[in-house]
Amino acid sequence: MSILPPGSTLGILGGGQLGRYMAMSAQSKGYRVAVLDPQEDAPAHMVANLKLVGPYDDPESLRQLADCCDAITFEFENVPASSLEPFAAKGLAIRPGPKALASCQDRILEKTLINHCGIETAPWKPIHQAQDLAKALAELGGEGILKTSRSGYDGKGQARVKTLDDAQAAFAKFGSVACVLEGLVPFALECSVLAARDTDGHCETYPVCENAHQDHILDVTICPAAVSESSARAMRSRTALLAQELDYVGHLAVEFFVLPGGEVLVNEIAPRPHNSGHLTIDTALHSQFEQHVRCVLGWPVLPYESIQTAAAMANLLGDLWDHGEPHWERLGEFPDVRLHLYGKAKARPGRKMGHLTAWAESPLAAERLVRDARAALGSAA
Amino acid sequence: MSILPPGSTLGILGGGQLGRYMAMSAQSKGYRVAVLDPQEDAPAHMVANLKLVGPYDDPESLRQLADCCDAITFEFENVPASSLEPFAAKGLAIRPGPKALASCQDRILEKTLINHCGIETAPWKPIHQAQDLAKALAELGGEGILKTSRSGYDGKGQARVKTLDDAQAAFAKFGSVACVLEGLVPFALECSVLAARDTDGHCETYPVCENAHQDHILDVTICPAAVSESSARAMRSRTALLAQELDYVGHLAVEFFVLPGGEVLVNEIAPRPHNSGHLTIDTALHSQFEQHVRCVLGWPVLPYESIQTAAAMANLLGDLWDHGEPHWERLGEFPDVRLHLYGKAKARPGRKMGHLTAWAESPLAAERLVRDARAALGSAA
Repeated sequence: MSILPPGSTLGILGGGQLGRYMAMSAQSKGYRVAVLDPQEDAPAHMVANLKLVGPYDDPESLRQLADCCDAITFEFENVPASSLEPFAAKGLAIRPGPKALASCQDRILEKTLINHCGIETAPWKPIHQAQDLAKALAELGGEGILKTSRSGYDGKGQARVKTLDDAQAAFAKFGSVACVLEGLVPFALECSVLAARDTDGHCETYPVCENAHQDHILDVTICPAAVSESSARAMRSRTALLAQELDYVGHLAVEFFVLPGGEVLVNEIAPRPHNSGHLTIDTALHSQFEQHVRCVLGWPVLPYESIQTAAAMANLLGDLWDHGEPHWERLGEFPDVRLHLYGKAKARPGRKMGHLTAWAESPLAAERLVRDARAALGSAA
Repeated sequence: MSILPPGSTLGILGGGQLGRYMAMSAQSKGYRVAVLDPQEDAPAHMVANLKLVGPYDDPESLRQLADCCDAITFEFENVPASSLEPFAAKGLAIRPGPKALASCQDRILEKTLINHCGIETAPWKPIHQAQDLAKALAELGGEGILKTSRSGYDGKGQARVKTLDDAQAAFAKFGSVACVLEGLVPFALECSVLAARDTDGHCETYPVCENAHQDHILDVTICPAAVSESSARAMRSRTALLAQELDYVGHLAVEFFVLPGGEVLVNEIAPRPHNSGHLTIDTALHSQFEQHVRCVLGWPVLPYESIQTAAAMANLLGDLWDHGEPHWERLGEFPDVRLHLYGKAKARPGRKMGHLTAWAESPLAAERLVRDARAALGSAA
């Protein structure tokens, strides 16, 4: 195991809140951080040693980043393969590696890989052209969800389709790019497993999180999830298997559907720290961001120990600012709720501005705390 | 209680590791941070939203800082009163306030205030001129420690004196500035109490830390200290009383001598987060830095809850780099030891480069862990 010595520079492609937390974690160990993001004063720029402003696919920006860093990691998976070339050319550690990035940015490749490992997903069909839709729809029971194979997130590039007309309209609206059509799954719960894998192949997983979405955006996460021990074990072992299959180095999250009978299906893989893992900042001995930078910089992964019995996290979206500044003083009523904000200057509806974490004796009690605290922020006492 | 809204800018005078941790804590809540330090690329500059380089007493630098911040705090106490004027002129929150800063930067004022509260210190005499030395020395039993009244830290501006000649030579060497002569105290332990006090006057103290020094520099801290419950209670209540007396807002540390019979004497007050409180980053629900910025920004202080039974912290001085890069890979043998580095580019003997924290079932077990881990860093396996 070869550790990049502190004082080295970690390059981060992407300067949102995930990049910001990665930067803070690396800096806590004495590393320098260089961040490339197209937007000036991005959340991670605000804390970085070196800020580069430019598009992710701009060869000059990428060359500048490669010139000043000793390892490179990613805030998000939608990086064109060509963006990795300047780093590969300099022989820098690229973590996670090209295989993981390529597989996870394309739903067709990703689902193929998952199924190839013997792991179940929702039934799905690749859609390369409009003509593929009729047969796929029929095989999946006549309805489903059409998703672009690349570049979707937070519900973007997704459409619920109930007829062939729906499907054809959605496919056309997406620009006739490659898609997958997924069959509907009557799931009971959505869950995620956080995991980190180091350069020696050791992988640690975190207790299963349970996620509730609102308008396709993560709303609330609780941990541990209300699932059976065998479902939890199945999700954690599948996550570790996928990390191994991807030669993964760094932190990842695997999203699951849990069926009413306890069976688990993989929904998708996020090759990076994940919104549902934000609660680890407060409730684990080592946060997902610390684990990520440890693995990327060549340190051994550490066991994910929870320091709280149960925890919950609620996202704070820009909508909370609709009627002006939230009522911060009301958090005084919630001493076991912690506020995190990402420093974004402009609040827009749906924009992730921050989150609340709470801990309690049970997941439901923690969930009530974050929901109540978030509601309180929205109204004067 | 009036909370400065997130997005406001916290000004920090001083850009070392204390300023760096303050900056990170404020940023975690969505605040912006502006740091003034005379040195380019100071540890806190590396993470700040806005870096100002200039002397602490330079009116132009101070005016620039006052222009861009909404509240101001301090990494260290040796700020001339005139440095506060630009902030006072703009009506900004100055926390801790002028009274606390003035009292704690001058040993004569500080000890006078402490004794005035009915709290014992080591016996001491003010020395304003060389002629004061003979009488003071006689009254203190013929020997003592001469300390400059202002600007001393880490043993600088201190001399152990055994004769009048010693004392006169030391006084002359210090430039005949105002000093205190302290009587020797046969203490059993040195301890510190960390505390934070908010704008509403609520004060929270942390379990007593026990400190071991090497060459006048803090070497190892363990918590909780091996003191009786009544000694611990006495130290915590005296700390809260002093915070109140100083109208304190923010985090402070009070250093104590514990005598063999359990009596406690105040050594000095540090009006800021303190090196002995670094272990709170890993072992308390809310670190000393989080508590400091909470109080400074108008949030209520939170209870200091330990999340570990016992903990220890060992400083990493520049000497560890004497023979090249430390053997970081050896930390793999110590999964319960956490590394913190401050990003300083140049290691010099005696320079605080970082620290190790460990937790265990007992303070002594934790101490052994940090000492063993630090020793391991110095030699290949």
